[in-house]
Amino acid sequence: MTVTDKWVASVRYRSNHLLLLDQQQLPHNTVYLNVTTIEHVWDAISKLKVRGAPAIGIAAAYGLTLWSNAEKETDLNTFLEKLKKQRDYLASSRPTAVNLFWAIDRVTAAAQSASSVAEAKLRIEQEAQNIQAEDEEICRKIGEYALSLLQDGDSVMTICNAGAIATSKYGTALAPFHLAKEKGWNLSVYANETRPVLQGSRLTAWELQSNDIDVTLITDNMAAHTLKTKNIKAVIVGCDRVAANGDTANKIGTFGLALQAKALNIPFYVACPLSTLDLNTKSGDDIPIEERPEEEVTHINGVRIAPKGIKVFNPAFDVTPADYISAIITEKGVVEGNYIESLSQLKEEETN
Amino acid sequence: MTVTDKWVASVRYRSNHLLLLDQQQLPHNTVYLNVTTIEHVWDAISKLKVRGAPAIGIAAAYGLTLWSNAEKETDLNTFLEKLKKQRDYLASSRPTAVNLFWAIDRVTAAAQSASSVAEAKLRIEQEAQNIQAEDEEICRKIGEYALSLLQDGDSVMTICNAGAIATSKYGTALAPFHLAKEKGWNLSVYANETRPVLQGSRLTAWELQSNDIDVTLITDNMAAHTLKTKNIKAVIVGCDRVAANGDTANKIGTFGLALQAKALNIPFYVACPLSTLDLNTKSGDDIPIEERPEEEVTHINGVRIAPKGIKVFNPAFDVTPADYISAIITEKGVVEGNYIESLSQLKEEETN
Repeated sequence: MTVTDKWVASVRYRSNHLLLLDQQQLPHNTVYLNVTTIEHVWDAISKLKVRGAPAIGIAAAYGLTLWSNAEKETDLNTFLEKLKKQRDYLASSRPTAVNLFWAIDRVTAAAQSASSVAEAKLRIEQEAQNIQAEDEEICRKIGEYALSLLQDGDSVMTICNAGAIATSKYGTALAPFHLAKEKGWNLSVYANETRPVLQGSRLTAWELQSNDIDVTLITDNMAAHTLKTKNIKAVIVGCDRVAANGDTANKIGTFGLALQAKALNIPFYVACPLSTLDLNTKSGDDIPIEERPEEEVTHINGVRIAPKGIKVFNPAFDVTPADYISAIITEKGVVEGNYIESLSQLKEEETN
Repeated sequence: MTVTDKWVASVRYRSNHLLLLDQQQLPHNTVYLNVTTIEHVWDAISKLKVRGAPAIGIAAAYGLTLWSNAEKETDLNTFLEKLKKQRDYLASSRPTAVNLFWAIDRVTAAAQSASSVAEAKLRIEQEAQNIQAEDEEICRKIGEYALSLLQDGDSVMTICNAGAIATSKYGTALAPFHLAKEKGWNLSVYANETRPVLQGSRLTAWELQSNDIDVTLITDNMAAHTLKTKNIKAVIVGCDRVAANGDTANKIGTFGLALQAKALNIPFYVACPLSTLDLNTKSGDDIPIEERPEEEVTHINGVRIAPKGIKVFNPAFDVTPADYISAIITEKGVVEGNYIESLSQLKEEETN
């Protein structure tokens, strides 16, 4: 499938079809799947072709839109009942993805107050587009606030992929680099390859390279030497969950990067939408760390690289204590210092 | 080729042949090459089947022995001339390996004062065996001093392979684990896989597993989380060169590990023979860092894992400043604090 604009994006809506970037084929093949039915969307989410919480939510919202636009039912109540069933169907594509539920519930709710099937269809499409537009705006704001901490010519380090392809556009940790490109700045990015699953190598390096941003790939254990010798001005990472005190869970390796940045007096920033902030989690101690299959460590591309029978420890995430975070960059501004107070205040503003 | 004792060793001399562990086939196949000629030794060194500075030196010394024992020449002067030619031949197997030159020069020199070919042959064999025995004794001493810093039941982290298979026996950073095994202690080891060339995964995990030592494999970016959550009592690493002030060059990732250990209040030890100490190098700033081909980062086992055309930074080593090293463990004792004074004193004792 060809796409007209060069910008890498995970989800593009084209009224009667979706273009979904098949992230499973990256970095070797850049393939946009031409998706016309809700079943196709289910399949793409289930097979991890779409990844990244916001991107999954957006794809699912458009999945309901594709169904709705093609649906022949004329009775409103029956239509809404069918919509509910389609919502449950999509929910089963990746049952642990919180953002997926949030998005399809929002779309389903938007249709409830319609007075006709035609209006319901319009509201469904509109809500899906709203979700995408809002996510893009959040990412753009995060990128702008992040850029306020950087200067033209800076070199910055990141890990994993908190990028455009995981969101509607721009990404979170990668947003400043895409925005800098738009305004003609030259930022250089050092991407940690992010073992074991290599999101930095397969996704971040590919995404930045695709948008003509200066990116250099390193293995994770080269971070300290690179931070020290390459005049790195900041480390920026995304996150999976921020606790009320600012402790941050993110891809494994983030904590080590924070320790190294602090030792070398380099600012360490977490970029995240306020939706990632979980005030019910008091501190990082309350965040469970998922352990994943040992094959991720012992094999690459199906080929064994470690001795048979070797014991493996494979935590998927780690927790960076707030003490090591110079600032948390949200769509509402940059938070520093007393995270407990500032984060709960921001969250309150958001929900008001 | 079968070997009678279970102990993993890179070089075993058996009067008319050598058993050389083919490290290129690790960790998948444990193959001891049956080496009977100097040409075989040249080939094994040149093709990196033997690796580790001490192991290369020992293999080369025995390479001259194999030649010498099979040589029919009866005139002493002609024999010594031929020996010199064989020495030069072996020197060409890996022209950058300092320990290779040191070992073959030592063997060649030992033959010079002989009064007959028979005596020269005896001296050559004896010197090769001395080199191996001395290396084993040095490693054992390093292991004993390292053990004095640990307790039964401790968990320890390491990186790369400063192991038995890189030396005569025991290794340097891995010596305490092998010695602990001999005395019935239970130490647990966490081995960083050591990207990009995976010496930790392919070699250290294999070596410790082969000697029934409790070892767990992690990727390099799991170090901080592991140090924090697995009650690690120490980090022990080998080294390529120690400068006069204690700054230490070692495999890439060592510096980052030192920063993380310090931040988490875990002792960080460098284990090395005094021969690694280079008083002519004032500090780490004077140690050049070799950069290696980008394919090591972009490919694993010949399969591309990163986008085509991606820029790569691939330093093979890094320098850990002395400030981050809790102690340097040598065969003459444990050095702490003022490295400049203590290291030069030890070196002086060694050369006296």
